[in-house]
Amino acid sequence: MFSKVQRCARFQFFKVYENGNFKRCGSTYGRPDFTKNTYNVSRGYYNYLQEDHIRFFQRLLGEKRVIMDLSDLEKYNVDWYIQVRGCSSIVLKPKTTDEVSKILSFCEKNRLAVCPQGGNTGVVGGAVPVFDEIILSTELMNQIISLDETLGVMVCEAGCVLENLDNHLADRGLTVPLDLGSKGSCQIGGNVSTNAGGMRLIRYGNMHGNILGLEVVKANGEIIDCLSTLKKDNTGYHLKHLFIGAEGTLGVVTKVAFHCPPRPKYRSVAFLGLQDFHKALKTFRKAKEELGEILSAVEVMDIPTMNFIKEKNNQQSPIGNYPFYLMIEISGSNESHDSEKLHSFLDSCMSSNLILTGTVATDPTKLNAIWRIREGISEGYKTCGAVFHYDISLPLEHYYTLVDDMRRHMGSRCERVFGYGHLGDGNLHLQIQMKEYSKELKELAEPYIYKRTAELKGSISAEHGMGFMKRRYLDLAKPPSSVSLMRDLKKLFDPNGILNPYKVFP
Amino acid sequence: MFSKVQRCARFQFFKVYENGNFKRCGSTYGRPDFTKNTYNVSRGYYNYLQEDHIRFFQRLLGEKRVIMDLSDLEKYNVDWYIQVRGCSSIVLKPKTTDEVSKILSFCEKNRLAVCPQGGNTGVVGGAVPVFDEIILSTELMNQIISLDETLGVMVCEAGCVLENLDNHLADRGLTVPLDLGSKGSCQIGGNVSTNAGGMRLIRYGNMHGNILGLEVVKANGEIIDCLSTLKKDNTGYHLKHLFIGAEGTLGVVTKVAFHCPPRPKYRSVAFLGLQDFHKALKTFRKAKEELGEILSAVEVMDIPTMNFIKEKNNQQSPIGNYPFYLMIEISGSNESHDSEKLHSFLDSCMSSNLILTGTVATDPTKLNAIWRIREGISEGYKTCGAVFHYDISLPLEHYYTLVDDMRRHMGSRCERVFGYGHLGDGNLHLQIQMKEYSKELKELAEPYIYKRTAELKGSISAEHGMGFMKRRYLDLAKPPSSVSLMRDLKKLFDPNGILNPYKVFP
Repeated sequence: MFSKVQRCARFQFFKVYENGNFKRCGSTYGRPDFTKNTYNVSRGYYNYLQEDHIRFFQRLLGEKRVIMDLSDLEKYNVDWYIQVRGCSSIVLKPKTTDEVSKILSFCEKNRLAVCPQGGNTGVVGGAVPVFDEIILSTELMNQIISLDETLGVMVCEAGCVLENLDNHLADRGLTVPLDLGSKGSCQIGGNVSTNAGGMRLIRYGNMHGNILGLEVVKANGEIIDCLSTLKKDNTGYHLKHLFIGAEGTLGVVTKVAFHCPPRPKYRSVAFLGLQDFHKALKTFRKAKEELGEILSAVEVMDIPTMNFIKEKNNQQSPIGNYPFYLMIEISGSNESHDSEKLHSFLDSCMSSNLILTGTVATDPTKLNAIWRIREGISEGYKTCGAVFHYDISLPLEHYYTLVDDMRRHMGSRCERVFGYGHLGDGNLHLQIQMKEYSKELKELAEPYIYKRTAELKGSISAEHGMGFMKRRYLDLAKPPSSVSLMRDLKKLFDPNGILNPYKVFP
Repeated sequence: MFSKVQRCARFQFFKVYENGNFKRCGSTYGRPDFTKNTYNVSRGYYNYLQEDHIRFFQRLLGEKRVIMDLSDLEKYNVDWYIQVRGCSSIVLKPKTTDEVSKILSFCEKNRLAVCPQGGNTGVVGGAVPVFDEIILSTELMNQIISLDETLGVMVCEAGCVLENLDNHLADRGLTVPLDLGSKGSCQIGGNVSTNAGGMRLIRYGNMHGNILGLEVVKANGEIIDCLSTLKKDNTGYHLKHLFIGAEGTLGVVTKVAFHCPPRPKYRSVAFLGLQDFHKALKTFRKAKEELGEILSAVEVMDIPTMNFIKEKNNQQSPIGNYPFYLMIEISGSNESHDSEKLHSFLDSCMSSNLILTGTVATDPTKLNAIWRIREGISEGYKTCGAVFHYDISLPLEHYYTLVDDMRRHMGSRCERVFGYGHLGDGNLHLQIQMKEYSKELKELAEPYIYKRTAELKGSISAEHGMGFMKRRYLDLAKPPSSVSLMRDLKKLFDPNGILNPYKVFP
């Protein structure tokens, strides 16, 4: 195991490589300004934490599970991208649903705001406090409760780390139905609350399809037991879906039951060079037709993305320079069948001039090395002067239009505009890299990109959620009738608005 | 094409075979008693239809789309199983969302109850009126709006018939992600409203995973536009899921956007004979492991089911008599690969004594003939003196326990208890056949089966919904906190309760 520590230019934090993988940094002294100072936001009419509140929490949880030491608090107050920072003075670490219920019930009665937090790997500032909200961490709720190996159904607590669940399932021939770059830190409860998407959505579908049951605690402490483990259950309203993607504003997810598909026995990824985006689209369509049920990821990136990776992460394209790259992953149950399908598809792509060149990785070391090129991109942001990063969904015909639009719009005022993402889901990650952070450039980029996305009938948040960072653009994402219905639901579930305030809603 | 007309013993209705398939009967004179007389139910405080109401509807829709002729009304008032019968005197057939909006807005203002109806293929009495509710039929809202062939996304109106959509997609290498026995009549809006399950859920997942967007009209006529066509869209609450499976009690679905997976190029079904249920379970697990991504249906039936099919539908087991039968369907993108996987799996099942015998059908005619054995079972009910049919989900270890339990419980008072269903989803269809219908036998069977299902941690409605028939058992399906939340939601969405009254809630 080798470990390398880098100092970040702007935020002065540590980035740690372990076993060739990027790991979450434990920022020990670097930190952004307080969100309350940086952004124009007013504290809600919540009470301030008092001695008797603290004593209640200490009686309930014991002193060790009530964190108040300033240095210990830091990592809960600052987000993964080190872009927002709250000033909470307390982190609570319940171990049971009953404790969560008692905490929320107490907070509701005492009008104390609460910020639920899972692995704190979100990138829109949804999981850290804005002011002094009490941080409710699920990290000690990390038990696997049951696994039906025949049907493929796991039940676990919300704080289980995604990768740990997948490792547990791997020994039993099953897999978690989602894969994220942050899998080593993110928690299943957070995945549910943010309707996490990731790389394999094209294969396994979204959280709404994969979550079979939830246990959730409402703001008043009431436990909503929708923890069904059944694949089919049509008995009344499908309440659990309201909490999927609600970003902790309607309730705190405490337990999760989810569908575990059979684990593929064979995996292979093709890294391909292409002349233009149009050919990437045609290759994607061909992949769907010819690879069908074994297709498990379709990622695209442009050459400026590859240049960025080279500069910031010191990683090389394995095939040289091309205007566009596609990563097409297959995974299936039979090595010779799967390999034959992939090579037949690639031969056909070459002979029809869809792709210029490519390499195929099957050996796990090589395969992981290729995936690290893709998964490491977001790490690169941190070593830049500044990158604005946008998570967008677009109809495929406009997928790359937006990148070109942004290049024209930003002109020479930025260093580089680049685009990559989950082409198979129409999910673009668009980045604007500048010499140094500038509020003026942000104002130039941001309203434009969201308005343009709305015009192109896209989504201003494909998979990251609204959190704190995108909330002021909610009106571009939903028509007034939907926003009004959202407000009605928030009022119904959390009339005093104690759950994750300043998030989702403008 | 041959067409055969049968008279039903009990209900005197017509059953029509066309092209070897059962088709919906057009019941011209047979009918059950009025629901309001059969069941202990009181009419809500709604207004009665008056002349000026009719004039409003006629001005809005024209006279032809306001149906009031008694013989024309009949098929809208009686359900598919001819078990419940409303006494509505009017059917409205809007063609646009705007018309639906104006109708509901008018009904809400005038406190007129409305029963939304799609293909009227439901089996729990959810889509027909109980009293004189205005029937709002979506059958003229049957246009396909758009299809993104590359991403695989179709947008259409709610009244499109499932099979028509699938035929449209077939020409473009795509498929609808669900398959139901009633596909020739059921409408996509109804599929959404009932969260339809069916045979291929094991392959394509449920409606929550496949529906990308909905347009819905609330009780007050407000149009909720969640008609996203994007695979990923995390902008605020995921409102559309509230309407999926709400059985038309929270809003009327008017447009649907859904995911269309690549159409399999090859399909094959194995019809297998087994010694006992335990071996069926082991074979299922083996199928998941070895057939993986090409597995598309796993159906089970017991020998009494096969005897029933023989007697009522005059269909034979293609492999002789065995205690249990499994139907394992595969579908994939490569005939030789798929066929090789299936035969290797079957050889291994034979050599490990999991299965006793079997036959494989690949030729479409034979394949359809085998599926007709399975799909025709529910048709058989109609030619019986009486069958109570229950749609249940159970944890797999208890799947067949309930059938044995019911045999013991009913004893010699019934002719036959039999079980079949979607084993791959834990979904059991349990039937109790009697010489003739008896209210006493129903009371003996019904509370027991639902209570026992709840004890075994199953669901009292796997895929059919609560409708009118199961509503009084809602408390066995959901804890009080969930039922209370459901009531809050109903009140929020439809404060005057005009939408599909007497359904879902006790």
